[in-house]
Amino acid sequence: MLFKQLFELESSTYTYMLACEESGKTLLIDPVLETVDRDLQLLQEMGLKLTHVLETHIHADHLTGALKLRTITDCKIAGPALDNLPCRDIGVQEGEPFILGSIQINPLFTPGHTDHHHAYLLANNIESRLFSGDALLIDSCGRTDFQHGSPEDLYKSIHEKFFILPDDTIVFPCHDYAGKFSTTIGLEKSENSRIGNNRTLREFISIMNSLDLPFPKKIDYAVPGNELCGKCPDNIPEEKSKICSEDKQG
Amino acid sequence: MLFKQLFELESSTYTYMLACEESGKTLLIDPVLETVDRDLQLLQEMGLKLTHVLETHIHADHLTGALKLRTITDCKIAGPALDNLPCRDIGVQEGEPFILGSIQINPLFTPGHTDHHHAYLLANNIESRLFSGDALLIDSCGRTDFQHGSPEDLYKSIHEKFFILPDDTIVFPCHDYAGKFSTTIGLEKSENSRIGNNRTLREFISIMNSLDLPFPKKIDYAVPGNELCGKCPDNIPEEKSKICSEDKQG
Repeated sequence: MLFKQLFELESSTYTYMLACEESGKTLLIDPVLETVDRDLQLLQEMGLKLTHVLETHIHADHLTGALKLRTITDCKIAGPALDNLPCRDIGVQEGEPFILGSIQINPLFTPGHTDHHHAYLLANNIESRLFSGDALLIDSCGRTDFQHGSPEDLYKSIHEKFFILPDDTIVFPCHDYAGKFSTTIGLEKSENSRIGNNRTLREFISIMNSLDLPFPKKIDYAVPGNELCGKCPDNIPEEKSKICSEDKQG
Repeated sequence: MLFKQLFELESSTYTYMLACEESGKTLLIDPVLETVDRDLQLLQEMGLKLTHVLETHIHADHLTGALKLRTITDCKIAGPALDNLPCRDIGVQEGEPFILGSIQINPLFTPGHTDHHHAYLLANNIESRLFSGDALLIDSCGRTDFQHGSPEDLYKSIHEKFFILPDDTIVFPCHDYAGKFSTTIGLEKSENSRIGNNRTLREFISIMNSLDLPFPKKIDYAVPGNELCGKCPDNIPEEKSKICSEDKQG
């Protein structure tokens, strides 16, 4: 298996590339519109052809690169079936492995940041990797104050789907804002300042409800745009017009 | 061996943590002043105690975290012996492995970005990793227009010290500005747009001399500050006074 972690600096988003060398099947998890060209250049350099995009959830802070990637490469777009998005080709759900050649990816239904959020677990004989989306972040977790988020649901998701995994499971999140790239289940169970060290549900709800975060700058057009798999909506702000004109041409 | 790659977002600098689990010896390669607290928190969470800092060169775009780290942890500061910096504890040079418990790191004298630049090669039976500093970057290389830089020297360094390594050597650079984290010797030999694909020395010199890059914003105080292992000089700009006051207290 080939694996690459990539970063989009404006939204601090991690995109993950997985490829099955035997079959040539190649996947990007959570690609970003702004970095589509970089991603395609990388795949070309590595002699790979994109076959699939897989989304963890409908993002509110950036536009997905899914649609632009499909337009260029004819790849399939996959994401949670619960999202019920006509623009996607494949709906995934817990209990039904997503197969990428010889790689098996297990979707984990993990609501709380959004109501349909899924994480993806890659487990083989050597190691276990969790693509945790915006559910579990490094020493943090996804916010729960919009898109039908719920601290109760997120607490349950993290405890029942993540904290039961082996301590040495490597966790690759969708974001980090402090330049960290990955963590482990063991570390987050003991050290995560919001939900680790045996925090109770009541403590967690209190922490999440006190965050008082500003809304993401792009939320007004990122959510409807991502419900179209990354098509810029008409009301996009002037400063983003370049990206959108590229996208509309793409 | 434990390994972590870390990122400082303002200067797009990668810091690398290596630790020998048997001996507890723990190293940071090219730490940044702004992220000292994050680095120490990470080590604490992992149950590690910093024993060494290792510099690839005297940086011009950011201040090293070396001195602040030593003040807090009593670690040793290492870097190229040629730099001849009284603030450092250990001078390294090619041909003399730097030993970190059971980990052997081979310094490679690789001038061109600066005249004393060293890269560090970690090779064991399983894999080969190169910490290439600012000599070789992903699809790029370090600039050669100050600090006694020289495109001729850099061409020679990359060809004679890096391109002779196995193609699957993973290259971890000191910077990337496009959200890529690592590359391989094979990929850079074939694809690097400045020096790959059999570019001649003459072509490389022409490319490097045409870059016309602005000077790094911090160069005036970063270079003298890093010659003191990361002590903020007196003439630091107002907007950085917070960092320096923290450093002076530290």
